[in-house]
Amino acid sequence: MTTHLGADLSALAGDLPAGAVVTDPDILAGYRQDRAQDPDAAVPRAVVRAASTADVQATLRWANAYGVPVVPRGAGTSLSGGSGGVEGGIVLSTEKMRAITIDTTTRTAVAQPGLLNVEVKKAAAEHGLWYPPDPSSFEICTIGGNAATNAGGLCCVKYGVTTDYVLGLEVVLADGTAVRLGGPRLKDVAGLSLTKLFVGSEGTLGVITEVTLRLLPPQPPASTMVATFGSVQAAADAVVAITGSLRPAMLEFMDRASICAVEDMLRMGLDRTTEAMLIARSDAPGAAAAGEIATMVQACRDAGADEVFATDDPEEGEAFAAARRMAIPAVERTGSLLLEDVGVPLPALPALVSRIAEIADRQNVTVAVIAHAGDGNTHPLIVFDPADEDMTARAQVAFGQIMDLAIELGGTITGEHGVGRLKKAWLPDQVGPDVMALTRRIKDALDPNSILNPGVVL
Amino acid sequence: MTTHLGADLSALAGDLPAGAVVTDPDILAGYRQDRAQDPDAAVPRAVVRAASTADVQATLRWANAYGVPVVPRGAGTSLSGGSGGVEGGIVLSTEKMRAITIDTTTRTAVAQPGLLNVEVKKAAAEHGLWYPPDPSSFEICTIGGNAATNAGGLCCVKYGVTTDYVLGLEVVLADGTAVRLGGPRLKDVAGLSLTKLFVGSEGTLGVITEVTLRLLPPQPPASTMVATFGSVQAAADAVVAITGSLRPAMLEFMDRASICAVEDMLRMGLDRTTEAMLIARSDAPGAAAAGEIATMVQACRDAGADEVFATDDPEEGEAFAAARRMAIPAVERTGSLLLEDVGVPLPALPALVSRIAEIADRQNVTVAVIAHAGDGNTHPLIVFDPADEDMTARAQVAFGQIMDLAIELGGTITGEHGVGRLKKAWLPDQVGPDVMALTRRIKDALDPNSILNPGVVL
Repeated sequence: MTTHLGADLSALAGDLPAGAVVTDPDILAGYRQDRAQDPDAAVPRAVVRAASTADVQATLRWANAYGVPVVPRGAGTSLSGGSGGVEGGIVLSTEKMRAITIDTTTRTAVAQPGLLNVEVKKAAAEHGLWYPPDPSSFEICTIGGNAATNAGGLCCVKYGVTTDYVLGLEVVLADGTAVRLGGPRLKDVAGLSLTKLFVGSEGTLGVITEVTLRLLPPQPPASTMVATFGSVQAAADAVVAITGSLRPAMLEFMDRASICAVEDMLRMGLDRTTEAMLIARSDAPGAAAAGEIATMVQACRDAGADEVFATDDPEEGEAFAAARRMAIPAVERTGSLLLEDVGVPLPALPALVSRIAEIADRQNVTVAVIAHAGDGNTHPLIVFDPADEDMTARAQVAFGQIMDLAIELGGTITGEHGVGRLKKAWLPDQVGPDVMALTRRIKDALDPNSILNPGVVL
Repeated sequence: MTTHLGADLSALAGDLPAGAVVTDPDILAGYRQDRAQDPDAAVPRAVVRAASTADVQATLRWANAYGVPVVPRGAGTSLSGGSGGVEGGIVLSTEKMRAITIDTTTRTAVAQPGLLNVEVKKAAAEHGLWYPPDPSSFEICTIGGNAATNAGGLCCVKYGVTTDYVLGLEVVLADGTAVRLGGPRLKDVAGLSLTKLFVGSEGTLGVITEVTLRLLPPQPPASTMVATFGSVQAAADAVVAITGSLRPAMLEFMDRASICAVEDMLRMGLDRTTEAMLIARSDAPGAAAAGEIATMVQACRDAGADEVFATDDPEEGEAFAAARRMAIPAVERTGSLLLEDVGVPLPALPALVSRIAEIADRQNVTVAVIAHAGDGNTHPLIVFDPADEDMTARAQVAFGQIMDLAIELGGTITGEHGVGRLKKAWLPDQVGPDVMALTRRIKDALDPNSILNPGVVL
């Protein structure tokens, strides 16, 4: 830590356009935490607002020479503390790198990392194409951050996650070398799968300066089905039956606590006594959507659903999807949140939900559960009052116990948010010492001075 | 080379079940080459037929200690010389590791590497599920080899390649450590994307001993469309129009030389004067297939197709798919083949095909072109007579020139077969020195004694 504190910021500023290096304390304060609000995050020494790949290269060359920690940051929407500041380090922001070009014949987009996910979607739509990945934060998170964390979303159950759409990357390595990996080719096995290695590496192996994305033809209009159940088990049975027979375009779960929170906020007429609700969609073309919806309705009835409702009216369907999307803000109205992201194999979903309730009871905190049920990825929302020190501590304990539980059930500590700094301590419990050692070998080979996002993952 | 020649095979045999180490020269001869028939392949010192992960571990521990080259091998169907023997090395065959279990609730299969792709498909189908990836060799290639090469196929244009279906791996590293990566979870971002790194690594980073595969609900029955064109450009225009508006379940291209070869063999009544033929499929559910086929028919007509034919009769449709699948054996009847696998961005397809014809003229060899047109992945088939030394040399020159051409057109030297030993010399031209250096750093970190499939990729 002593070496890099002596590193000369003015030397860095000399290598960059005027104004790129920010040291104004008021501005620095805004780059301390990300959405995870990690209390241990530090105010960075400086923020570099890169405007080009060359700026990123100059920054990493300087940081690597002096051993200065570099935290790459898009919009700072990390929920696992992957983009919070590090003592003595700099934050390398890509927010100014916002160019995009669409190629309709190869159906690809080439985007700089600072563009928002929603802006990529819009640019594709202007050319009659579709970029599917849809993290709930799609209106405020960047495409660079999506690639760095291999972000998920609601449509993943049918359309896959970010890595499935990343055909190529430009990445700046720790020593400042810029490499081009992959490209606008739907099939390319020339050499190691390096593009895939950098996707999801959370800024620990390099800084993504450009992404080449696969686009799809536009999504057909979707029909929507909603079902309520007297038990989580019945809802899980329906999920298994549905995903075994077709590929829904969305298959979301809400438990009673999250249903009640949404009803408190939106007054939609949701049944507060129901134990579980599923919201599913079909975007099969033409008349096929009605067939898929009928299959899903029947699966819910067979599983013992109390009420089932289906609509092919887009606005009516969107109201239910909105209910699901509003679950986090609705629960957040009742207190601060620790937002979990554990996943389990589908058969373990009822056990996960019921044992999360036990943890909540034991720690005397509220935990509402929403889930991308079709892929077993759940978001337990732990509610606490940060002014109550004891409750905050109990919420933290619950946060860890839920990860322990997911691992015990054969699951993962993070389905789509990333390990960041907040979940690092649990990663070895999930993957074991040999995989940690393998991870360390790759990290050391690519970032020998350990300047890239230190404290994340490893 | 001197060290490992002294390595004691009997010590290895002592660590393995009786009969696992094969040194019978007649048997060894059969493990010298793979389907690429690389003349430079060497008879291995021994073949180890591993029956378990423990056998693979024991073999790699021994080989790593003595610096003995290890060539992992499934069914030996590599078309790029990825599984041919190495001087003084051993071949580590996974052909005896053939267990599979299907989990219908998580829709996953856990398979050992020696199982054939077709056997995975059948096991899934017995449980009402579907494993999509379908390399043309699916009846004779192993799932381990598919994962090691990130194999493609005909349905990739809609359903993606092998890596999109690999949720988890068990891999034995160079030092004999077995690691479990990923698992039966559709979303999992805990740690680096190591599963994805090993997929497509062609046996250079570790030996795959188990794959966890994502399965889909069964594929709906497909409708088929066939169209013929007076020019490659017209066919390519139709491909761009089709893929911009929907996702065909298959979109294959045959040029005149391959059409004539198939007609010579099968007498199907194909038009020998046509310059290009497209064979496309829709598997959209229910009535939607007819809609997609109508869209594709119109796109072909708009692009100037001479004849367009559509059918929803599965047998009739299968006859056309079979014509495409028979193209390689049909062309092979006219001579030995050097089978290319270059890919280009779709707009460059006409330039690729016309300039391949120029190369064929210049080298005075026949080159027939078939392609997975929907993803720009082509298989130029270079025909030569191995008894004719001069012609063989000219075929080799054409093989290299076609790769040079693909690189010039912004493409790849290999879309789905892998680099192996045959294409290694061209890889640096495609990816450049910095990516080669990055590849070397990862290789050295994971296989410091360079025992794993030496000569492949690097």
